[in-house]
Amino acid sequence: MEPLSPRAERARQIADVLRQRITSGAFDDGPLPAEHELGTQLGATRNAVREALGLLRAEGLVERRQGVGTLVVHPKYGHGLDRLAGLAEALDGYGDVVNEVRAAGLVTPPPAIAERLGLAPGARVVHLERLRRLGGLPLSLDTTYLPADIGLPLLDRDLAGRDLFALIEETSGSRLGRADVVVHAVSAGPDTAALLEVAPGTAVFALDRLTHLADGRPVDAETLHIRADRLTLRATLHRGPA
Amino acid sequence: MEPLSPRAERARQIADVLRQRITSGAFDDGPLPAEHELGTQLGATRNAVREALGLLRAEGLVERRQGVGTLVVHPKYGHGLDRLAGLAEALDGYGDVVNEVRAAGLVTPPPAIAERLGLAPGARVVHLERLRRLGGLPLSLDTTYLPADIGLPLLDRDLAGRDLFALIEETSGSRLGRADVVVHAVSAGPDTAALLEVAPGTAVFALDRLTHLADGRPVDAETLHIRADRLTLRATLHRGPA
Repeated sequence: MEPLSPRAERARQIADVLRQRITSGAFDDGPLPAEHELGTQLGATRNAVREALGLLRAEGLVERRQGVGTLVVHPKYGHGLDRLAGLAEALDGYGDVVNEVRAAGLVTPPPAIAERLGLAPGARVVHLERLRRLGGLPLSLDTTYLPADIGLPLLDRDLAGRDLFALIEETSGSRLGRADVVVHAVSAGPDTAALLEVAPGTAVFALDRLTHLADGRPVDAETLHIRADRLTLRATLHRGPA
Repeated sequence: MEPLSPRAERARQIADVLRQRITSGAFDDGPLPAEHELGTQLGATRNAVREALGLLRAEGLVERRQGVGTLVVHPKYGHGLDRLAGLAEALDGYGDVVNEVRAAGLVTPPPAIAERLGLAPGARVVHLERLRRLGGLPLSLDTTYLPADIGLPLLDRDLAGRDLFALIEETSGSRLGRADVVVHAVSAGPDTAALLEVAPGTAVFALDRLTHLADGRPVDAETLHIRADRLTLRATLHRGPA
């Protein structure tokens, strides 16, 4: 392995500390302290601080503005992985989530989707695609497949303003149960990047989620592409039996 | 917003379905089916399948090998976000996790770290940096800070072969309790990329984790950079009370 310079290592470690402070909201109300001040706080040289800020700029987390200093680009919202909640529920209090409904209708899905939903190959399902915004800026692109009996009643409802989870519970009369979630970090392809209004190649979350009714029936197979510069995923884990 | 071609949209949707199948291990034992066969399975044209495979190649998920076809680059291992477990515990059965210990010793950490650990500014802590490999290839780069009374006894132990969580429980005689986890998706900077043996700019997970003893004392402040082409994060979520 190539040896790395101690200075680069130091910058990376400082970037780790700053990332944690930034995403916990320490600098949401104004610019970060000046480089020399950060250096004092972090016990680091000004050069190391400058390199660390360069890494965080490359991540899209902060930007430098002339005459103002270094600013956090977007406050990062936390989406809990502890409890199954829709995005609007999770962001309650941060502002209104508005959904641009880009597709809504019956389709014959790929057999892999039918299988995930426990349907026969060729069964028609409701396909929804929604671009979700908070404060006007895209947060996520959600591609959803639902069995026809669950999905069709949703088409008359307020898909632009409401979370699917709440709507499914209302129209089906059943509570949701568990969801199996797999989280990936991927580079946004040109198409996803254009929709999410980020540069192609930007790191985003891709989240596969299969949600079941309380009785165990799978009713909602989704892939969400989430802007990682705007949303973090949070969880509290507990140590089980050894 | 720029209108996107229906063909690009279709390719993206097919890539979503294939990504889910790939990461659930459907093609770990050999090449993916040929493009026309995938097209039949997915109800898509061969062109759309080809574009979807191009997106997944750009994500580093698959590669094309002359005379063989399209292969999954690395089987993706799932790291559960349901229960607090070390990497070696989580990957039990997949092979041995070997840790290259790059740093291990007492340091004066940045004040933000001391604060996270509930220590006075200037308190000395144990700093560990480990590059963790499975099957010879890097999985993650872990930067850890521990209070001296917890960390010093670890320095005599098998840091190369064991999970920190198990070692902390052994040497402290206390069980671990909860951990607060925040997950980011970021583009790897040059330094992190070199250590993880990926191209600079590759999407990786950055995971901040603060782990407590069962009595609530914070004892382990970490930042993990995780190769997202090798590891997914998995969780089962439950719908709580409305």
